Amino acid sequence: MNDIFTARGSVLIAGVRIGGSIADIAIDEAGAIAEIGEAARKAIDADIIIDGTDRVAIPGLVNTHTHAAMTLLRGYADDMPLQEWLSDKIWPLEAHLSGDDVYYGTKLACLEMIRSGTIAFNDMYFFMERAADAVDEMGLRAVLAYGFIDLGNEEKREAEIRATEALTAHVKARGNPRIQAAVGPHSIYTVSPEGLRWCAGFAEEQGIGIHTHLAETEREVTDCVAGSGRRPAAHLDDCGCLTPRTVAAHCCWLDEAGCRLLGERGAHASHNPTSNMKLAVNRAMPYHWLREHGANVCLGTDGCASNNSLDLLEEMKFAALLQKFAWNSQTLLPANEAVAMATIAGARALGTGPGTLTVGAPADVVLLDARAACNTPLHNTDSNTVYACNGGSVMTVLCQGRILMHEREVPGEEEIIREAAAAAQALVGRAHEA
Amino acid sequence: MNDIFTARGSVLIAGVRIGGSIADIAIDEAGAIAEIGEAARKAIDADIIIDGTDRVAIPGLVNTHTHAAMTLLRGYADDMPLQEWLSDKIWPLEAHLSGDDVYYGTKLACLEMIRSGTIAFNDMYFFMERAADAVDEMGLRAVLAYGFIDLGNEEKREAEIRATEALTAHVKARGNPRIQAAVGPHSIYTVSPEGLRWCAGFAEEQGIGIHTHLAETEREVTDCVAGSGRRPAAHLDDCGCLTPRTVAAHCCWLDEAGCRLLGERGAHASHNPTSNMKLAVNRAMPYHWLREHGANVCLGTDGCASNNSLDLLEEMKFAALLQKFAWNSQTLLPANEAVAMATIAGARALGTGPGTLTVGAPADVVLLDARAACNTPLHNTDSNTVYACNGGSVMTVLCQGRILMHEREVPGEEEIIREAAAAAQALVGRAHEA
Repeated sequence: MNDIFTARGSVLIAGVRIGGSIADIAIDEAGAIAEIGEAARKAIDADIIIDGTDRVAIPGLVNTHTHAAMTLLRGYADDMPLQEWLSDKIWPLEAHLSGDDVYYGTKLACLEMIRSGTIAFNDMYFFMERAADAVDEMGLRAVLAYGFIDLGNEEKREAEIRATEALTAHVKARGNPRIQAAVGPHSIYTVSPEGLRWCAGFAEEQGIGIHTHLAETEREVTDCVAGSGRRPAAHLDDCGCLTPRTVAAHCCWLDEAGCRLLGERGAHASHNPTSNMKLAVNRAMPYHWLREHGANVCLGTDGCASNNSLDLLEEMKFAALLQKFAWNSQTLLPANEAVAMATIAGARALGTGPGTLTVGAPADVVLLDARAACNTPLHNTDSNTVYACNGGSVMTVLCQGRILMHEREVPGEEEIIREAAAAAQALVGRAHEA
Repeated sequence: MNDIFTARGSVLIAGVRIGGSIADIAIDEAGAIAEIGEAARKAIDADIIIDGTDRVAIPGLVNTHTHAAMTLLRGYADDMPLQEWLSDKIWPLEAHLSGDDVYYGTKLACLEMIRSGTIAFNDMYFFMERAADAVDEMGLRAVLAYGFIDLGNEEKREAEIRATEALTAHVKARGNPRIQAAVGPHSIYTVSPEGLRWCAGFAEEQGIGIHTHLAETEREVTDCVAGSGRRPAAHLDDCGCLTPRTVAAHCCWLDEAGCRLLGERGAHASHNPTSNMKLAVNRAMPYHWLREHGANVCLGTDGCASNNSLDLLEEMKFAALLQKFAWNSQTLLPANEAVAMATIAGARALGTGPGTLTVGAPADVVLLDARAACNTPLHNTDSNTVYACNGGSVMTVLCQGRILMHEREVPGEEEIIREAAAAAQALVGRAHEA
């Protein structure tokens, strides 16, 4: 059984349901979809055959906003006022984080993501070289950014610049096509205009993305307007950070002009509904305006301290439901758009392919259990995927044609769980001793 | 392995995590918790021993508002304006429902509930004698109400009275202690004051509960005030239907006086956050007022057409997050209160015991996988249960000491799935032919 995880070669997924029909999917040795349908069996001489009976195939999911290693903080503190939660709980623990912690926490995050159908994620945190080690081993895709925070301090800015340059060089040197670097200016309220401008210039020079938080809270807007006379999106744009390679997380408090600006710049808005509800930001991302103005809206879970799960199937449900509730519309963000948000839009934001099951696309494929209670009856695969199923219905996951999970088995799972649990316990111990 | 499902006798759950500690749970032959802790092994001569290693024990979950057989409509129609959705999709399909459909749909619902840790549910639908057959076979608890709708028509009222009397007699005649009858006046806008008064009198006479919908939409409030000069809770109370055995679903549009009234009457408010978000009712149940005025607030999923899942672990997360978002508070409905809502409050509403893991309580026990990614690390079991885990982490379920699922195996699962899928397909076929 371990063969299937280590074997390299062509793969045939035989007789799987895609939307309303049953088809074969042929995957070539390079991990691309070579053929779908009747011609698939003849298109390749399959080294591995996966039985698709009672399986629904969907494109691999893309998580466009995470702080993966925060899995170690899952459940450490919740249900507190934001400032107290950060000052008394999260930051003191993070102060004791080591590179090993980030490695173990990111491996746990990768495991959780694979088990719930995610094959690519957009990450921002610290010790990202160790996050790269974890991603490398786990076999999925990631865009890794060092969280750049200068708080207007020039000395700190220089250190952040060096850290960003170092991570970028490190990721390029690895030469792993699944792992990209991005620049990670944390937000307009933690990074000076000078810092933001440096990030914009460096991202352009290196041909890499920008990952930031934008308009998460009302206070961010109020403070930004008071300080700069502009709202956050305009300020970010002024500093050159709104680009076709920018992923802006949250976007709850964008006004219509801000949505138009994101659309005009070709920037990507990462919707994080669960985190926004848990932290009570008091406004849902204006999906209708972003869509109207042509911005690409993708989906993210945020970190495990503010969600506390990395399950994008669940996140699709939260997105589809929060939009309806918050904007008072029974028809806003229907199931098929929620699926597109987690696949096509996410893949576009991270540049990982079309995010579809189409010939020539990377074989990033997720097989759901069609015989699970959540998929019974199967009137509509999109509806069941978004509204009924969660990550527990994911049976098999392929990334670039490589099998990361099959029949819910992920190689090395027990060790990853054990090591992450131990790292979390030791981290809390160190923080409490201090 | 089938033995464990059919065997009767005493059960020891050995070395299981309960909150912050590890303990044994002894269950006697009558299905009650005989002892917890060090004395447990000596309290019984166990016929069955369940290894609790790497398991977290929580009380069985209670779903206080469902239309179970609507599993057959899962994903049949979504994302539509409410009236169009009901008139063009849901009602035409329901017009073709048979007793067999309700049986197969309810079995599927029971399977889904067991697999996600629910051991009791409060149901309202049609052909409820067949729902009782399903519950009987599946081994969990249910309170079954016929959905009483007279639309102010006297002839229809007489028919609904006869149907309610018949179901009540049927359930009593079965003599199954797991199954109770309730009176199910659908709502104040579908049942006349005369109908409501009959329901109140019959419930009192029979010593059974009342299951109704209350203040789900703003229109219900507006129409009620226009028609009767009172808001819905006062109107329901005027007709005698607000009692210590009343479960009122939704309660989104209660004002503070309505919340106080529910508290004074000892009535139970069933929070259905997912359904309320999906149908965009534009207001979340005022949990803070209900709590302040001493009303018992429990949790429900609603039917599968408006959720579309019966997973109460997921519903706890929706509840804890929707309350925070809608009422703009990072601290409202913390994890421990969400767990209590789905266990203690639900059990109180349905009269199925204390809803706790305590000596003398019915052994309604759920074992979660402590080694799942969602439970790693395990800083706080309540937090992980509510915010990180979903029904997929439920490993073992006991109801009254009887094992309904073990290591995710439920006897007869494949057949239930196959029959429900076939019934749903045939139902759609009949509706489309007509």
